[in-house]
Amino acid sequence: AAEGPAVAAQPTGSAATFETLLVSTEDNMTTIRLNRPQKKNAITVEMYNEVIKALEQAGKDDSVITVITGSGDFYCSGNDLTNFTKIPEGGIEQMAKNAGELLREFVKAFIDFPKPLIAVVNGPAVGVSVTLLGLFEIVYATERATFHTPFSQLGQSPEGCSSYTFPKMMGNAKASEMLLFNKKLTAVQACAQGLVTEVFPDSSFQTEVATRLKAYAKLPRNSLALSKQLIRGTEKEHLHTVNDQEVERLVERWLSDECMQAIMSFFQAKAKL
Amino acid sequence: AAEGPAVAAQPTGSAATFETLLVSTEDNMTTIRLNRPQKKNAITVEMYNEVIKALEQAGKDDSVITVITGSGDFYCSGNDLTNFTKIPEGGIEQMAKNAGELLREFVKAFIDFPKPLIAVVNGPAVGVSVTLLGLFEIVYATERATFHTPFSQLGQSPEGCSSYTFPKMMGNAKASEMLLFNKKLTAVQACAQGLVTEVFPDSSFQTEVATRLKAYAKLPRNSLALSKQLIRGTEKEHLHTVNDQEVERLVERWLSDECMQAIMSFFQAKAKL
Amino acid sequence: AAEGPAVAAQPTGSAATFETLLVSTEDNMTTIRLNRPQKKNAITVEMYNEVIKALEQAGKDDSVITVITGSGDFYCSGNDLTNFTKIPEGGIEQMAKNAGELLREFVKAFIDFPKPLIAVVNGPAVGVSVTLLGLFEIVYATERATFHTPFSQLGQSPEGCSSYTFPKMMGNAKASEMLLFNKKLTAVQACAQGLVTEVFPDSSFQTEVATRLKAYAKLPRNSLALSKQLIRGTEKEHLHTVNDQEVERLVERWLSDECMQAIMSFFQAKAKL
Repeated sequence: AAEGPAVAAQPTGSAATFETLLVSTEDNMTTIRLNRPQKKNAITVEMYNEVIKALEQAGKDDSVITVITGSGDFYCSGNDLTNFTKIPEGGIEQMAKNAGELLREFVKAFIDFPKPLIAVVNGPAVGVSVTLLGLFEIVYATERATFHTPFSQLGQSPEGCSSYTFPKMMGNAKASEMLLFNKKLTAVQACAQGLVTEVFPDSSFQTEVATRLKAYAKLPRNSLALSKQLIRGTEKEHLHTVNDQEVERLVERWLSDECMQAIMSFFQAKAKL
Repeated sequence: AAEGPAVAAQPTGSAATFETLLVSTEDNMTTIRLNRPQKKNAITVEMYNEVIKALEQAGKDDSVITVITGSGDFYCSGNDLTNFTKIPEGGIEQMAKNAGELLREFVKAFIDFPKPLIAVVNGPAVGVSVTLLGLFEIVYATERATFHTPFSQLGQSPEGCSSYTFPKMMGNAKASEMLLFNKKLTAVQACAQGLVTEVFPDSSFQTEVATRLKAYAKLPRNSLALSKQLIRGTEKEHLHTVNDQEVERLVERWLSDECMQAIMSFFQAKAKL
Repeated sequence: AAEGPAVAAQPTGSAATFETLLVSTEDNMTTIRLNRPQKKNAITVEMYNEVIKALEQAGKDDSVITVITGSGDFYCSGNDLTNFTKIPEGGIEQMAKNAGELLREFVKAFIDFPKPLIAVVNGPAVGVSVTLLGLFEIVYATERATFHTPFSQLGQSPEGCSSYTFPKMMGNAKASEMLLFNKKLTAVQACAQGLVTEVFPDSSFQTEVATRLKAYAKLPRNSLALSKQLIRGTEKEHLHTVNDQEVERLVERWLSDECMQAIMSFFQAKAKL
């Protein structure tokens, strides 16, 4: 079967302790693979928590670089909207509050991650899996990948620090097209706009990327980590502020009529299929 | 006659109250059309004031998006230099002070505008009409459009927050070529540098753009406005500081020999035609 | 012989007072030419000090623009690693401290330079000569030029304010490829990423660039200087902070095992040739 880069056939280390991820460390590289391929790797509450935990472990292990990728044809379809169907005792206000707190911690784990973080985008990416890419050092994409952040369609607002990283990276006129007006980018477009480092033909994607990653994992560990922290350092505090503001806005949004109606329409359309 | 997007043949609402603009609201979209086509939509003192007023109204009306475009072949030829020929009682110092205060309020109206703002650049754009584009969410341009900021040729300095937005968007090496060295960009070049969202063939420009705008105007109103404000929020205060600094510098420039000589040469060259 | 732009056959002014540079002022333009072509214009301690001095003089002379270029086939091969082979009395700690202080002053001279600064990149550029380009107003490159910052290969970390200017200019995903993972860019790639203003065929490079520079040098002096200072002004203080942080990190790096081993390997490989 076609497998991603640098995941051993027999994963070693802590791989067995996760339900929604495959995590392995080999040859100075820790790989975190989102592993709900039947659900396009949509992020459940459990997966949010497991990614936070996996990043915490990867930040402390002796690997040089950390890689995130997806199982199957999708990279990640974003937030699993069924997260919004489990109403806790405190009602939907409590649900929105909990979801906001989880998202804040999830994004925080990416802001604070101390080593080079590399996304291997093996297929379409949606929502928070796209916005977070602004916090990665390297983003390699197959030509099959697409990048879509349909926030306003769902009555929502941008997260993952994209309200800051996207305009910084590509300018307002391109960032708003994605973040406000739901433009879906091809891999080549995303590369031209600075969101993606390089695009590869799908047929040779895994092989070519694996070669790069192996070479990167042999570079001096401290030099890489300290250089990354130097770059992040000049804006780390600001990223935390942005994360807080985005989450606050989103919690309000989740409780708005616009958002509730949009999410109900989503499930109704799905039920008809 | 070829008309811009979403302007009714019979403009409704407050359209009648402006001398230099056509303003109309229809289908959740307010359109502000610069309407001095015989003068290439050059911005007079009156037009500065009317745009400020029109933006204030559009920010409060129930439209979802606001569009700015030009009548005729030009988008806007920038500041009308005849503004400098009407010397008030206080002399040219007073004239420069007044012009600075007007520019500051004009740019402020764009910084503070609370909804998505879309430029439909229907032809060449010059000076402040170019620099302000860094404060728009979407910039659609016909392939005929050009983008020119000949500040140093006139002994002046950048405004419209471009001393901040342009380097942020395109890097110093491209921004200085425009802002210091008077490089005129084609629409395709402006798109490659992040100033323009997308370029369209002139023959289908109005039709294609109208289709996009109609779709955008149907998106959830609050989601769009709050998302825009979230993005703007992280740098709004800084934009006001930049605006103040640019205006202060420009008022000094207007009183400099370099600038006065350049403006006199402009009128002498014009008189010879 | 093919000479660079605007350097008189008989250099005038202060040219004679430098050992490692050719400096001349003519037609409102001061040209600083790195002049160790036999060493690919690698920067020795003496050259660091002379560039600081030359920039100080150029900032005060009556030229309108200042140009930096290289003699021979290279633009600049970066820091001369033989700088690390002259151990002072205080040992390698003192050497690292001295080198850090020199680098800080060198970069400071670029941050504070008050006029438009133009790089004429006549061939390959390496290390600090690349990172500093983020502080130039215009970067013209021959198609033969390449841009390489192999910091992690040498166990080092980014300088020249590139930990701030590169992500700002090209986004994280492109900046990290250069600054962490040693990607060497062609001139065309560097232009697409905003590091270079324009690329020229090698055969016409000097002629075409000289035409541009002559035109720029005729623009109003104060308008250009004040416009540049306006743009720089909004981030000058931050650039000094970034410079301090980069130097501090680099001094630590120079004393690390990773870096010492990498530099020793460099000299061993060279000795075998």
